[in-house]
Amino acid sequence: MRERVAPKGERVCPFCVGHESKTPPEILAYRSSGGPNQPGWHLRVVPNKFPALRVEGTLDRQGEGLYDRMNGIGAHEVFIETTNHKASPGELTEKEYEDLFFAVRDRMLDLKKDFRLRYLLIFKNHGESAGATLEHPHSQLIALPIVPKRVIEELEGAKRHFDYRERCVYCDILQHEALAQQRVVLETDYFSVICPYASRFPFEVWIMPRAHASHFEKADNAPLQNLAWVTRALLRKMEKALEFPPFNLILNTAPVQDAPYDYYHWHIEIIPKLTRVAGFEWGTGFYINPTPPEEAARFLRDIGLV
Amino acid sequence: MRERVAPKGERVCPFCVGHESKTPPEILAYRSSGGPNQPGWHLRVVPNKFPALRVEGTLDRQGEGLYDRMNGIGAHEVFIETTNHKASPGELTEKEYEDLFFAVRDRMLDLKKDFRLRYLLIFKNHGESAGATLEHPHSQLIALPIVPKRVIEELEGAKRHFDYRERCVYCDILQHEALAQQRVVLETDYFSVICPYASRFPFEVWIMPRAHASHFEKADNAPLQNLAWVTRALLRKMEKALEFPPFNLILNTAPVQDAPYDYYHWHIEIIPKLTRVAGFEWGTGFYINPTPPEEAARFLRDIGLV
Repeated sequence: MRERVAPKGERVCPFCVGHESKTPPEILAYRSSGGPNQPGWHLRVVPNKFPALRVEGTLDRQGEGLYDRMNGIGAHEVFIETTNHKASPGELTEKEYEDLFFAVRDRMLDLKKDFRLRYLLIFKNHGESAGATLEHPHSQLIALPIVPKRVIEELEGAKRHFDYRERCVYCDILQHEALAQQRVVLETDYFSVICPYASRFPFEVWIMPRAHASHFEKADNAPLQNLAWVTRALLRKMEKALEFPPFNLILNTAPVQDAPYDYYHWHIEIIPKLTRVAGFEWGTGFYINPTPPEEAARFLRDIGLV
Repeated sequence: MRERVAPKGERVCPFCVGHESKTPPEILAYRSSGGPNQPGWHLRVVPNKFPALRVEGTLDRQGEGLYDRMNGIGAHEVFIETTNHKASPGELTEKEYEDLFFAVRDRMLDLKKDFRLRYLLIFKNHGESAGATLEHPHSQLIALPIVPKRVIEELEGAKRHFDYRERCVYCDILQHEALAQQRVVLETDYFSVICPYASRFPFEVWIMPRAHASHFEKADNAPLQNLAWVTRALLRKMEKALEFPPFNLILNTAPVQDAPYDYYHWHIEIIPKLTRVAGFEWGTGFYINPTPPEEAARFLRDIGLV
């Protein structure tokens, strides 16, 4: 069932040092030497060579009989996280994660200037069964001309809670979990890492800022530096507990053009790919999870920081 | 990427003839000889040995701090579709599909009598990567004490269309597709098979009754007999086009305790597992489909009936 992600194909990897010309020209790089699209970088952001959406053109909403269509206006960027082709996510350095989160913030603040872009989705697919097509460590950003269905559902659910209780539901979860201490994996001054109540998937984990904030891109340096430590520590625990699992990581943040929300709270969701989504899940939107989050959290908590 | 599903392990298969004692006692069987739980059957319905939900107990809704929980009251049944362990879905006979649809109707009408059961989900996972754990051809029924999130969304969407236009959106789709003839795979007197507009997945296919009906279990014998022919013909086309793909099949039908709906229309959804769901899909609820439904439909249409 599980897949240990093994490196191969460094010689042909477009993300490796010396192969800069194999990607479209870089949008952003953090480097200690060299000029654009030359070696000397530690992090590069490049357009996806096979983008899901493109910046050129107009939205052009139109009817097609019963149906509605619009053009795929947007952007699709790749964050090359390290020069080390072989590194597993837990083997990246704290500095590399810091660079990654700083670069994500930089790109979000830049893309926000294009008012057509309503939502910026940042995610990482690690391992073939989690949908990764290249093994060199990387994350992705897709800028969308509409707010995704899933984000709208989350915003609406959070708003219902706020309307009823005048409190952010995520702040309530943080407080509840800090008291219960059944589903907490680790805590720092800035972040709580929890296995959420009634998790959909085994070892699903959320990284939540302890202070209320709806937009990731407004985070200061100090919390992002701490997030780098937290993310690396968590991924190292997961690699030890689950033998280098494939996973999806998703940044949940508020629509980039919107003002701060009282009722929404950004967070990172990590879903190891240990089970398969089948007919039951498609047919219902419900999930059967063989590993209770209380057990997953205890297991991850008990693994020492390495 | 793709997996041809090859048979193995007939000797230990609990669904094979002569192994009737390896399943819990049967709930229903169609047989030409023998008594209950003996050979002589062509279709058997048995409780799942490892059920997702159980009939015993009470719902017992309760709060847990912030959260809500309830017991997993319900039922989980398995339809053993044939005595032929090795048969691929397209190799089942028309009679076997007829038995299957008759048995599904029988079980739905029986379970409907338990008013705690609000939704009956019928589905088939074929192939390991589609979530099947046993290879002997079978389908499943899960009876749920609540109407699933996905079904509520579909009902609400269909209702919005009806409120605006006073027409069933599925009837509108049938009419539109019959005129456009771009996404139709095959048509009979009773059913239309289409690749839906803006399909989420490559070769996603819907089987829709042409006459309005919200509840599968109210279907008469003649349409169900025709459905057996249609399902088998479609699966044979898919096996030829896609080299015996793994797939999920889901019956979309109205909540079993509800009166007939003007705005909902039962249908069968088939999703071949050709692509992987990754961070983008989880983060947005949107799907990137490399094969337009117009191409998939033409491809399936052009394969002769075999």
